[in-house]
Amino acid sequence: MKLLEERIVKDGLLGTGNVLKVDSFLNHQIDVAFVSQLGQEFKRLFHDCDVNKILTIEASGIGIACLAAQYFSVPVVFAKKSKTRNISGDVYTATVESYTHGIINTILVSKRFIGPEDRILIIDDFLANGAALEGLIQLVRDAGATVVGAGIVIEKAFQAGGDRIRSMGVRVESLARIKSMDPETGIEFI
Amino acid sequence: MKLLEERIVKDGLLGTGNVLKVDSFLNHQIDVAFVSQLGQEFKRLFHDCDVNKILTIEASGIGIACLAAQYFSVPVVFAKKSKTRNISGDVYTATVESYTHGIINTILVSKRFIGPEDRILIIDDFLANGAALEGLIQLVRDAGATVVGAGIVIEKAFQAGGDRIRSMGVRVESLARIKSMDPETGIEFI
Repeated sequence: MKLLEERIVKDGLLGTGNVLKVDSFLNHQIDVAFVSQLGQEFKRLFHDCDVNKILTIEASGIGIACLAAQYFSVPVVFAKKSKTRNISGDVYTATVESYTHGIINTILVSKRFIGPEDRILIIDDFLANGAALEGLIQLVRDAGATVVGAGIVIEKAFQAGGDRIRSMGVRVESLARIKSMDPETGIEFI
Repeated sequence: MKLLEERIVKDGLLGTGNVLKVDSFLNHQIDVAFVSQLGQEFKRLFHDCDVNKILTIEASGIGIACLAAQYFSVPVVFAKKSKTRNISGDVYTATVESYTHGIINTILVSKRFIGPEDRILIIDDFLANGAALEGLIQLVRDAGATVVGAGIVIEKAFQAGGDRIRSMGVRVESLARIKSMDPETGIEFI
């Protein structure tokens, strides 16, 4: 998606260790009008998939998922990262290692909100090693629901996650796919 | 807001210890069309305040803030709850004790996203003891920005937070104010 690639080049900040900061428009400050356009693109890509629910994971995925959900007229469910007093014990769980935070999280979704009748589009901001996405897919499959696909804003295609998830038979649509990035030479897209 | 009160009575679940679960439509599963109506109500309440940015806190506030922001045509900034590798060191911080999780969090916002020129509306899902809201107000004031007010979806008015924040001179608008709640006798609104 050209609009997104241009925005990443314009406002993204490259750091060492394959860090790409897009926190001025995507995942700390959110340019709501812009992200809404990303949501519209997800609708174009998955318009014929009978999506009846969007699943994402806290925190960065929530805004994107909610703005996209408006085009699908479906609710959003976001997986939580730890057990809180306000979540019942009746949950699906998966274990996810977070590259960003260097810790292992249990992610969970209440069993009340995903079931066999659901056709779920998973939405997230980044796909890199694929751990979060794999955990979300597992949650959906544990619930007996169908994963119609994953809509990703930015895929670090030089990391293994995208290939691995696609080889599992899951349709992955990434709006920007980064082939390589380097603080010196910049970003190259696929 | 009558629509919200009715929804809380219909779909809210009361637990012991003053727990009100609204996770079927507000903060785990999100009824996007419904929450968008809440956003429209915030716009009606704060339409003449020259809001140029909405501030919220991860995770439950993000969806509400993004949907509301569409009516204000402003970006959202969400405060994060712990220091991650992807946030620069240049941040405003505050300490917030979480009643829900029973832990103390440091919340932070990058200094790049709040400044003296900003007129900020704070949005969150719940106001109870007011710790999160107070932390957000402190962040805004540390940045030299103006808090035009706080838009809260559900205020537990029998707890001290709302009164304390209002006595600080901050305008607080809560779409539903709960006077009392009890698993046996139900919910009474103000």
